[in-house]
Amino acid sequence: MALRTPDQYIESLRDGRVVYYRGRRIPDVTAHPFFRVAIDHAVIDYRLAEEPRHRALAVARDPESGEEISRYYVIPQGVDDLRKRSELIAVATRAGGTMVTLIKEIGTDALFALHALSSQMDKALATKVHDRVRAFYRHCARNDLALAVAQSDPKGDRSLRPSEQEHPDYYLRIVERRKDGIVVRGAKVHTSVSVNSNELIVLPTRAMEEQDKDYAVAFAVPLNSPGLRMITSVYSQHREAREEADYPLSSKHRMLETLTIFDDVFVPWERVFLDGQWQFAGPLALGFVDFHRFTAVSYKLPLLALLTGSALLMADYNGVSRAGHVREKIAWLVSYEETVRGLLATAAQQCSPVVPGVVAPSRLYTNLAKLRFAEHYHQALAYVQDIAGGLLVTAPGDEDLANPDTAADIQHYLGGRKGVSARDRLRAIRMISDLTASEFGGYHAVLAMHAEGSIEAEKLAIAREYNMKAAVAYAKEMAGIE
Amino acid sequence: MALRTPDQYIESLRDGRVVYYRGRRIPDVTAHPFFRVAIDHAVIDYRLAEEPRHRALAVARDPESGEEISRYYVIPQGVDDLRKRSELIAVATRAGGTMVTLIKEIGTDALFALHALSSQMDKALATKVHDRVRAFYRHCARNDLALAVAQSDPKGDRSLRPSEQEHPDYYLRIVERRKDGIVVRGAKVHTSVSVNSNELIVLPTRAMEEQDKDYAVAFAVPLNSPGLRMITSVYSQHREAREEADYPLSSKHRMLETLTIFDDVFVPWERVFLDGQWQFAGPLALGFVDFHRFTAVSYKLPLLALLTGSALLMADYNGVSRAGHVREKIAWLVSYEETVRGLLATAAQQCSPVVPGVVAPSRLYTNLAKLRFAEHYHQALAYVQDIAGGLLVTAPGDEDLANPDTAADIQHYLGGRKGVSARDRLRAIRMISDLTASEFGGYHAVLAMHAEGSIEAEKLAIAREYNMKAAVAYAKEMAGIE
Amino acid sequence: MALRTPDQYIESLRDGRVVYYRGRRIPDVTAHPFFRVAIDHAVIDYRLAEEPRHRALAVARDPESGEEISRYYVIPQGVDDLRKRSELIAVATRAGGTMVTLIKEIGTDALFALHALSSQMDKALATKVHDRVRAFYRHCARNDLALAVAQSDPKGDRSLRPSEQEHPDYYLRIVERRKDGIVVRGAKVHTSVSVNSNELIVLPTRAMEEQDKDYAVAFAVPLNSPGLRMITSVYSQHREAREEADYPLSSKHRMLETLTIFDDVFVPWERVFLDGQWQFAGPLALGFVDFHRFTAVSYKLPLLALLTGSALLMADYNGVSRAGHVREKIAWLVSYEETVRGLLATAAQQCSPVVPGVVAPSRLYTNLAKLRFAEHYHQALAYVQDIAGGLLVTAPGDEDLANPDTAADIQHYLGGRKGVSARDRLRAIRMISDLTASEFGGYHAVLAMHAEGSIEAEKLAIAREYNMKAAVAYAKEMAGIE
Amino acid sequence: MALRTPDQYIESLRDGRVVYYRGRRIPDVTAHPFFRVAIDHAVIDYRLAEEPRHRALAVARDPESGEEISRYYVIPQGVDDLRKRSELIAVATRAGGTMVTLIKEIGTDALFALHALSSQMDKALATKVHDRVRAFYRHCARNDLALAVAQSDPKGDRSLRPSEQEHPDYYLRIVERRKDGIVVRGAKVHTSVSVNSNELIVLPTRAMEEQDKDYAVAFAVPLNSPGLRMITSVYSQHREAREEADYPLSSKHRMLETLTIFDDVFVPWERVFLDGQWQFAGPLALGFVDFHRFTAVSYKLPLLALLTGSALLMADYNGVSRAGHVREKIAWLVSYEETVRGLLATAAQQCSPVVPGVVAPSRLYTNLAKLRFAEHYHQALAYVQDIAGGLLVTAPGDEDLANPDTAADIQHYLGGRKGVSARDRLRAIRMISDLTASEFGGYHAVLAMHAEGSIEAEKLAIAREYNMKAAVAYAKEMAGIE
Repeated sequence: MALRTPDQYIESLRDGRVVYYRGRRIPDVTAHPFFRVAIDHAVIDYRLAEEPRHRALAVARDPESGEEISRYYVIPQGVDDLRKRSELIAVATRAGGTMVTLIKEIGTDALFALHALSSQMDKALATKVHDRVRAFYRHCARNDLALAVAQSDPKGDRSLRPSEQEHPDYYLRIVERRKDGIVVRGAKVHTSVSVNSNELIVLPTRAMEEQDKDYAVAFAVPLNSPGLRMITSVYSQHREAREEADYPLSSKHRMLETLTIFDDVFVPWERVFLDGQWQFAGPLALGFVDFHRFTAVSYKLPLLALLTGSALLMADYNGVSRAGHVREKIAWLVSYEETVRGLLATAAQQCSPVVPGVVAPSRLYTNLAKLRFAEHYHQALAYVQDIAGGLLVTAPGDEDLANPDTAADIQHYLGGRKGVSARDRLRAIRMISDLTASEFGGYHAVLAMHAEGSIEAEKLAIAREYNMKAAVAYAKEMAGIE
Repeated sequence: MALRTPDQYIESLRDGRVVYYRGRRIPDVTAHPFFRVAIDHAVIDYRLAEEPRHRALAVARDPESGEEISRYYVIPQGVDDLRKRSELIAVATRAGGTMVTLIKEIGTDALFALHALSSQMDKALATKVHDRVRAFYRHCARNDLALAVAQSDPKGDRSLRPSEQEHPDYYLRIVERRKDGIVVRGAKVHTSVSVNSNELIVLPTRAMEEQDKDYAVAFAVPLNSPGLRMITSVYSQHREAREEADYPLSSKHRMLETLTIFDDVFVPWERVFLDGQWQFAGPLALGFVDFHRFTAVSYKLPLLALLTGSALLMADYNGVSRAGHVREKIAWLVSYEETVRGLLATAAQQCSPVVPGVVAPSRLYTNLAKLRFAEHYHQALAYVQDIAGGLLVTAPGDEDLANPDTAADIQHYLGGRKGVSARDRLRAIRMISDLTASEFGGYHAVLAMHAEGSIEAEKLAIAREYNMKAAVAYAKEMAGIE
Repeated sequence: MALRTPDQYIESLRDGRVVYYRGRRIPDVTAHPFFRVAIDHAVIDYRLAEEPRHRALAVARDPESGEEISRYYVIPQGVDDLRKRSELIAVATRAGGTMVTLIKEIGTDALFALHALSSQMDKALATKVHDRVRAFYRHCARNDLALAVAQSDPKGDRSLRPSEQEHPDYYLRIVERRKDGIVVRGAKVHTSVSVNSNELIVLPTRAMEEQDKDYAVAFAVPLNSPGLRMITSVYSQHREAREEADYPLSSKHRMLETLTIFDDVFVPWERVFLDGQWQFAGPLALGFVDFHRFTAVSYKLPLLALLTGSALLMADYNGVSRAGHVREKIAWLVSYEETVRGLLATAAQQCSPVVPGVVAPSRLYTNLAKLRFAEHYHQALAYVQDIAGGLLVTAPGDEDLANPDTAADIQHYLGGRKGVSARDRLRAIRMISDLTASEFGGYHAVLAMHAEGSIEAEKLAIAREYNMKAAVAYAKEMAGIE
Repeated sequence: MALRTPDQYIESLRDGRVVYYRGRRIPDVTAHPFFRVAIDHAVIDYRLAEEPRHRALAVARDPESGEEISRYYVIPQGVDDLRKRSELIAVATRAGGTMVTLIKEIGTDALFALHALSSQMDKALATKVHDRVRAFYRHCARNDLALAVAQSDPKGDRSLRPSEQEHPDYYLRIVERRKDGIVVRGAKVHTSVSVNSNELIVLPTRAMEEQDKDYAVAFAVPLNSPGLRMITSVYSQHREAREEADYPLSSKHRMLETLTIFDDVFVPWERVFLDGQWQFAGPLALGFVDFHRFTAVSYKLPLLALLTGSALLMADYNGVSRAGHVREKIAWLVSYEETVRGLLATAAQQCSPVVPGVVAPSRLYTNLAKLRFAEHYHQALAYVQDIAGGLLVTAPGDEDLANPDTAADIQHYLGGRKGVSARDRLRAIRMISDLTASEFGGYHAVLAMHAEGSIEAEKLAIAREYNMKAAVAYAKEMAGIE
């Protein structure tokens, strides 16, 4: 098989999948203008592989078959693989107007984690899962598939374990074990790019104990599997009828999430990767997160770069570049962006093998980078909005610039420092409004808090990675305590 | 004259005013569904005066005429007046879904400042402006008018003074002095509630020097004055077609801003309050700000209360009320809200007379309250979003709850802790999404940074109010420096 | 009885009390130069009452006897009493070089709380404690006594209750109930001013449950009671031989803490205020804290004023007053100080009666003021040190300025901006070094975190005072949840 | 020449240098108990080279001569050299109880910068300075010398340039150019380890303009040069008579600073490295700072590790390890330490050649690491003190534990959780008190703000390193601005 073209990818989504949106079934997502924006956005991943200047980065050789595969599918074996992967994610996200494409990123994160998990589990429990993972991986890589990952369960009462909930379905579970496979019931929330992927990988969301073992389940199914239903978010970065001039980012770039229902979905054994081995649910969840937070930080960097660039641009346009407080805020934005970048570089540099043939980025530094990003994102918005000015929400629109009754007034009054036209200044303002104060901006902000795991999960990971014994020993030595 | 009814207010807006929106002239704002939301929101101020339980707060007696007037028009003469004014603003804003009504608040802030300024100026320069102010004040109070205030000039290059700009119109200015009045040219940005007020008060935005004296101008004109044009913001909290279920706040509550053009607008002398007395431009701008920041903090408190309440509600719904980090975040939100409230109380308590018969709230504490609000607002959003969860942007919509194909799934999977239905939880999520992550949320966030003056202006005011001499003297005494 | 003179106070400390310091018993604290600094510092409270300009503030009339009493002993009955008390504390602390005198402040805080507690308890349990409290109060007020309060128990393992500890003495407890009184055993830590007070009031440190009832004990004893032993802290703000020139604050102002041992101390019934009524241990601890945190913030304000003044002075001396970052830091210091001050004013203003005849400051605002102080104190140190410069720790000493071999060099090289001599600049630096970077500075910093209750205790108090029901109701109303 | 022994180093300091301390000339620093602590501390650098387990790290081969040299003298030629240097600095500082030894670190930083500067200057201006630098470098390396660096001028009015000051000596300058060398006059402040080094390297402190060219001077002189006088700081981490038990860190580890006077000191040409080439003053100052901030962060890491270790130890001793707020604070401390460490690793990894044969660490990441350290140090102190408890300043001393009258009480009452003796707990408390709340703690805190350049200098460096053009171009592209 060869790499797919954008058209092949789009065509592959016409497969009878069950998708709902705003109260209606969508018979063909590729034909619906709202979904089409998300699909066209995802196409970036396929398009980059065709562009001469990105080809070397986007395409690699499968070491097994010698065929060309998307670099996303390259299993990282060292620092350089991680760096290139990170760079490719950043390039695609930049092209995507700060919105990650995700259709290969997240799925390969899951595949890498499954590689590692299955090796470890086969060794510990004499299961035979690794071969299944390899076969599924080959299927995806060689067919250049788009993948979604469903991990977060609805959770009900977050203070209770899966088996303690009011009803048994708040976490996805196995309801039947058959000769040819398993049947699963439940739902997953926040499933990104499910409506426009080919395969869906399902992972557990947390560590389990023995009584939760029916919830310790991982597998993959095509998105048109019987019993699988997707109810699309209505959050309105998704809203129809976004004028490009007023929403330069969100009119073209969109990612969709679904509430994904598993109404007794059958999964054949060759697609089952975890099936009650509750001790491995936590390691798998965590192993995925190690790769996926590294991916996340990689695609957050263009977003931070655009925030810094926006502040610099507006400071210049407004004639305030030299004001003390503006310089202070810009230094803060630069420090924020570059600290995240620097920690990500260390995470790649200090990667280590999880099983032979697979390295993972440093858990400590990946989480530090992600935490730093997440904890300061809203402050960054505040600074950018502060420098950009109140016109972010009070400016006239593009149609007013086109109306001869009002165009001259706008041009006369809304210019910036000498040499900056009202048109350019309004374009900058409109873009920053879209980025920071629209529903697209809200989407980015909520994702900063929640995507790829919460702030508290990151803190926990960091504390656990720290060598507490050595630190306490040093303190005791200094205090003269034997 | 008596207090006006909502209908009388609405009727008064059909006066031929020149309003543009999205490239078109709007012939009658009361007939346009988009503008109508803003008008219906403003009506709250008139409605409260008619409601028995709010009447005592909303209505007062004019000490001169003995007639009933809106309490907004009561010139503050002591702590109690400030407190009641503050309470009325909060009550109206709560009724307005965290959106201030503003049609009497801001205008009376300007009138109070004009009272003080004109007394001082008449004394210093033997002008006769105070009588004009009084006459205009009586006109507004007795006719129960809705008022807008235009203060912010477009400013061009912010590092230059008015008279140094690339063209002379970046700040509003007097272009002609006639026997019967003045002619003004220029524009004002961010003019709130102009499309649905009766009169527009215009104030200078900053201190002036002698070379800027044509820019030292203050006056009032009806909003249908010849040459006055309003170009309405397109920022999309204003967007049409907001479903109430998905946008419970912004579908019903809206404030509109305009770029307000003064194309050689004539102002008769009895409406001119500052006319070249450049030394008084700064004091007037600052005097207005003293009252207006007090108003601002008064109407921010319901917003903060809703953020705290949202966090508490979602913590309960999600079953995480007892988690350590959730308690920490809630304690922070409470401290944030109550610190702002406590400083506002001190600002009222420590008010002082600016001229006989007019007290102003403490500049120091008003600015401290406002600064604290502004500097931490984005952090508050982060905490509320953190507790509420990612469903803020990934949840299905109200139409999906109505669709029988999907309703059962949603109800089964999106409930919270025992006893919390998916319907209630989604309503809470939708409201918080509207409040923090929609364009309504973005509007609030940008206003937090910019409305009623910038963060830097507040810091400056605070530093200037501090008794630096006493502090330095104490330091010297402690150091033994004579 | 009349107010005591300083000499009478000093004389009263020669009573055979058992005090240890650095491995030795101190037979007479008034004769030991190290303790004498602490005693002379405490004398400020007696001296102020004799000074004409402070007399009106420092002295009041006992409403019962008509005699003059120290204002500290006035039981607050309204806003004005709280304000004057607060002002007196601030005046004494300013005179004390930012160090509180405490010998009447903390004891009266305890007496106010005992007044309230005993009224409530007598009513609920038909005890007769209020009369004992009144009698003891009269004894203290009329004899103008100096009082210490012992509250913090050693606590052992902080995750366990008193009755669960490894040994039963980690919290002070009743070991015997006799006809004439009780016998107590245990210890208290952090007992301030015990070595130089006349009476010691002992309070429980936390809420108790029934199994802890022997730990629910409150009483008062003279500091020379048999079985009472004090082991003085060696923390070296207390160190001997501090040269005044190099330590302008700590050479003259000192407060001492002890580990206070109760080796089966007998307390007659008329001095016992709580004796097993475990339900009242928490309310008493909390009631004391309400008054004492108000006291605390009152005496922290001069400290904050000196930090701000120090920053202003050094910015001027170094010629950096106009640098953007310096202005930013000074605005921060001013905001910090004035926010604490403003919240304290609201705490007094919004006081409420706890029992007839006793008002307490607002618990919410007192805790907000205290928390704000505590959470930002170290940041304030950082800013002051940043502006002051590295000479804080690298400057030559006063003896070098006196040495003719080095004096000229120092004078030539260590001056500041034009007009600022090296001598003055070094004095300022030395004072700031003492205030922020010496052991006196460290003492202040640790007290900021721990004195009058921890940061976490303050957060808890704030969250509990908040009207959560109202906030949640508003959120539900806005979300349309019935 | 071979590596020196500790004794040879100590002996070399008996050279007639002119040192003052507390008003007296110190004839022999090695014989003065106060100075001797600093010298014995510095000896660590020589001792490590003799210890088998550190030898491989501490000793390297001179590539030119093949002789053994201290690794500090190895000119970094790649990532590995920087990493090993960083590790050696950390090892020595850990052995030094968080106090850097500095006698080879700072001098070699200066030598590396001089290597680079002289190459660049020789090329640009056809000077012959590089050979002088090489000769001096060889002299130092082969004789295993201890080096101090004097950079900070007294500065007078910080808002004025060197040539604009009230008198011409506020910055060090050339007062005479002779055939055989130059004569310099002025002073340097904050000169660390000058009293116990062999040679003093003098660098300019800032960029210069043409009118300041007499101030553009760099050179090296022995510390016993005629006209060179050192006035030692009296800051009392230096104080005599520190008992080891109560001050476990500062009783053994000390670094001394001097005000260093150059009273017309003659410097022969072969020791002159900058002599009026004002354009190179800034690059030299900055070049030194690049290396020296890398050194600084390297030696700050053990300090941060001890803070984290202290918090962990005390949380355990006090039985609060599982409290939510304690875990939050520990996660913060870990994140703080590891973020600094991670950024330092990136700084080494992304080093680049400044001239052939010399690489410098990444300026961006070095400054980010340093800034992060400096901006959060005081917060770290607050958290450690919060967890450790108020006994930091109220505990009895070691002598009380030795006194049989009080020992039993202390042992009975000041233990921690089960299994933690009062003795161990007090040792931990005493160490943390020394680290965070003593004058040693204050010294560390002030150094955090000022050593190796101020916070503002670091922000400036960071902002300048950022690729602003690329960021603005991306913002324009996204906004659709051509």
